[in-house]
Amino acid sequence: MEVELKALLDDLNVLEKSLSDPAPIQKVFVLLLLISFLSGLFTYSKSLRSHVENLAALSKCNPHRRSKVKELSSEVVDSNPYSRLMALQRMGIVENYERIREFSVAIVGIGGVGSVAAEMLTRCGIGRLLLYDYDTVELANMNRLFFRPDQVGMTKTDAAVQTLAEINPDVVLESFTMNITTVQGFETFTSSLKNKSFCPTKEGCGVDLVLSCVDNYEARMAVNQACNELSQTWMESGVSEDAVSGHIQLLVPGETACFACAPPLVVASGIDERTLKREGVCAASLPTTMGVVAGLLVQNSLKFLLNFGEVSPYLGYNSLKDFFPTMQMRPNPQCSNAACMERQKEYMLAKPARDAAAKAKMEADALTAVDDGPLHDDNEWNISVVDDENEKDAAKASSSSDTLPEGLTRELPVADEYEKAIAIGSGEAEEEEDDLEDLKKQLEALNAA
Amino acid sequence: MEVELKALLDDLNVLEKSLSDPAPIQKVFVLLLLISFLSGLFTYSKSLRSHVENLAALSKCNPHRRSKVKELSSEVVDSNPYSRLMALQRMGIVENYERIREFSVAIVGIGGVGSVAAEMLTRCGIGRLLLYDYDTVELANMNRLFFRPDQVGMTKTDAAVQTLAEINPDVVLESFTMNITTVQGFETFTSSLKNKSFCPTKEGCGVDLVLSCVDNYEARMAVNQACNELSQTWMESGVSEDAVSGHIQLLVPGETACFACAPPLVVASGIDERTLKREGVCAASLPTTMGVVAGLLVQNSLKFLLNFGEVSPYLGYNSLKDFFPTMQMRPNPQCSNAACMERQKEYMLAKPARDAAAKAKMEADALTAVDDGPLHDDNEWNISVVDDENEKDAAKASSSSDTLPEGLTRELPVADEYEKAIAIGSGEAEEEEDDLEDLKKQLEALNAA
Repeated sequence: MEVELKALLDDLNVLEKSLSDPAPIQKVFVLLLLISFLSGLFTYSKSLRSHVENLAALSKCNPHRRSKVKELSSEVVDSNPYSRLMALQRMGIVENYERIREFSVAIVGIGGVGSVAAEMLTRCGIGRLLLYDYDTVELANMNRLFFRPDQVGMTKTDAAVQTLAEINPDVVLESFTMNITTVQGFETFTSSLKNKSFCPTKEGCGVDLVLSCVDNYEARMAVNQACNELSQTWMESGVSEDAVSGHIQLLVPGETACFACAPPLVVASGIDERTLKREGVCAASLPTTMGVVAGLLVQNSLKFLLNFGEVSPYLGYNSLKDFFPTMQMRPNPQCSNAACMERQKEYMLAKPARDAAAKAKMEADALTAVDDGPLHDDNEWNISVVDDENEKDAAKASSSSDTLPEGLTRELPVADEYEKAIAIGSGEAEEEEDDLEDLKKQLEALNAA
Repeated sequence: MEVELKALLDDLNVLEKSLSDPAPIQKVFVLLLLISFLSGLFTYSKSLRSHVENLAALSKCNPHRRSKVKELSSEVVDSNPYSRLMALQRMGIVENYERIREFSVAIVGIGGVGSVAAEMLTRCGIGRLLLYDYDTVELANMNRLFFRPDQVGMTKTDAAVQTLAEINPDVVLESFTMNITTVQGFETFTSSLKNKSFCPTKEGCGVDLVLSCVDNYEARMAVNQACNELSQTWMESGVSEDAVSGHIQLLVPGETACFACAPPLVVASGIDERTLKREGVCAASLPTTMGVVAGLLVQNSLKFLLNFGEVSPYLGYNSLKDFFPTMQMRPNPQCSNAACMERQKEYMLAKPARDAAAKAKMEADALTAVDDGPLHDDNEWNISVVDDENEKDAAKASSSSDTLPEGLTRELPVADEYEKAIAIGSGEAEEEEDDLEDLKKQLEALNAA
């Protein structure tokens, strides 16, 4: 009896130490001693003990949440969660990192790629994230990053919000547990993209970028339809069913090929995507490939939003050979998607204004360059901030070709109407053509080796 | 008083429901009622209530851990955490995925790259992970993946073990909270690598691979020294101080350049690494770049361990241009590291045996190929499992050159003794040379654009 009581007292001691304010526990202590002596209920001490142990264990996982931060600081102290990001500004990589808080990004599909992309953007301090998924977390998802076994059974959106809110309370999280390919779901999806309450002064949509991280054709077509209708720039991502390759792609309605302009391109050959969800058949997946694709996708998103480096129009990843093909795709002038045709028309009509703006900007830049000199003395890579307008025109002026660069194949059987209307541009005329030719030769040489 | 008591009872009710076995709580319930009535200590009920609330909140994060799995199953059910990995075997990517459980991997440095690498290997079901770090988790680390704000103040090793054990209880985790660059730390490090208790039949060391994910030169040299002494293959990784480039490198003592053979190569120019830890100066970092580097590192590790695809000798990542330079480095015949020279001698002496084995294997493979036919009918990429021995000889036969491929620079000022002894091979003779030439041209064209 005495031993049991001592064990109980020890456990209470542990519990007392593990809690920040021990005073009330000391009172419980006194009370328990009182009970012990008053009611002689020593027989309960064993079960009580196991409970106190349990509670003591639980108290160790007491969530120590960080408080919200009003303004991003570049102060170099261990307690500043933004010091390493604000350093990008001090180092001249990003002109204004603080703008990150103004941006809204929608992520469709919170699986192996989407969840990691959401975590990366959250840790970067993005202003607002909109998350879309209808699925629940399963143990079978544990071979990819992000979700934890204790979240099994939760919806992916709820589990993501739980984790992301803890990581960075500064990010505004909105989650939509629904299937965007249903009529109702599609409607909610487009109206949520249009909602401007976060930044009422924003032009166009309520979001700055849509990231498609879904695993099936229908969902990609739904994102494509919504973004074409709303003239919203988006990025598509995908990982092959054999888990060893993937890609990311930038889609600007009217300016680049939309998802319906040409059959989707994937790196290396894949199994028919429609077998993916068949019972008993399961695609392979690896945390590595999905982590790399998520990293490349969010890196491209940061370059797009914060205006640094070069935004990749298409970037493939073949992990077996560590080969990274790139290319550009022009819109198809006979695209079956009516909204895409509308956007193409608008883009053509705006050409004179775009040209004039580009010319004015180039002249202004030339003047500034004479005044200021180069930003970095040791700019041996000739890295410069890319002028959006110039890039757009260069892409528009790209030549068209029917052949695909080596290493890329079409993901789905080609419908006749798509076949004859394929319009694959190979980027900035000659140079880009050479680029692909080089990559082709390179791959052939590697294969021959 | 009555209200307070009711609130207390409600809270106990919540607590009771949230715990799996409510019986003992019901007893506490009775006891608390007894206290309330017997000792008239109602004044305590308010502080008690806040404590019960606290405990009820804690009980919600009761970790629902998955149970250990005895054997990897390829069964396609939601509850199988290995189904998507075993699919790699069914798809012919990996010959025997189950071997993953036999491997031990040591990760030195559990920061932005090391922690993600550890998580990826854990989710892949690696047999055993050895983790080394002396640092503690800070809020300033929250801009990278893996660590959570509630782990601030814990050592990185403890926090990593906490998270990884929850994700996959099948992995044997061993953590070492120490600095490997001290005399004592280095000794513990080498003896832990030698420990064969996990797999006593293993040849050589007790680990199959060492991953260096540290952020300073001294620690890299310590890993290099240990691996040269133990003839242990390792992979090095790094991310630039401006956060926008990184690299991975394979180091096989005696066969490839060691870290002391030539000054380390990095993608693009970086700030002097020694300024990194100076007070008030802080390097930039991004979860994207670090996630991509961790993904490429673990992908290369999986290819090395499970014998599929091609293991990259060096892979760079320039995120501003999405450019991925590759190269190979021969050992320096005048390397200042005595253990490296020893390994080089051994490697040369073993050449005849290696050649004979390679020839025999090639002949056997040729026979098998005739019997079996190709593994995939649609193998348009000519992907085949690479023969280690053949690859090693090809690397050995590589030509040497003093020039670096475009996009790579030396990380540190070059010491005179290193300068004159640089031995950079450019891989498989002519082809590889062309490869680099192509990449150079490609980059120049991109820069000119």
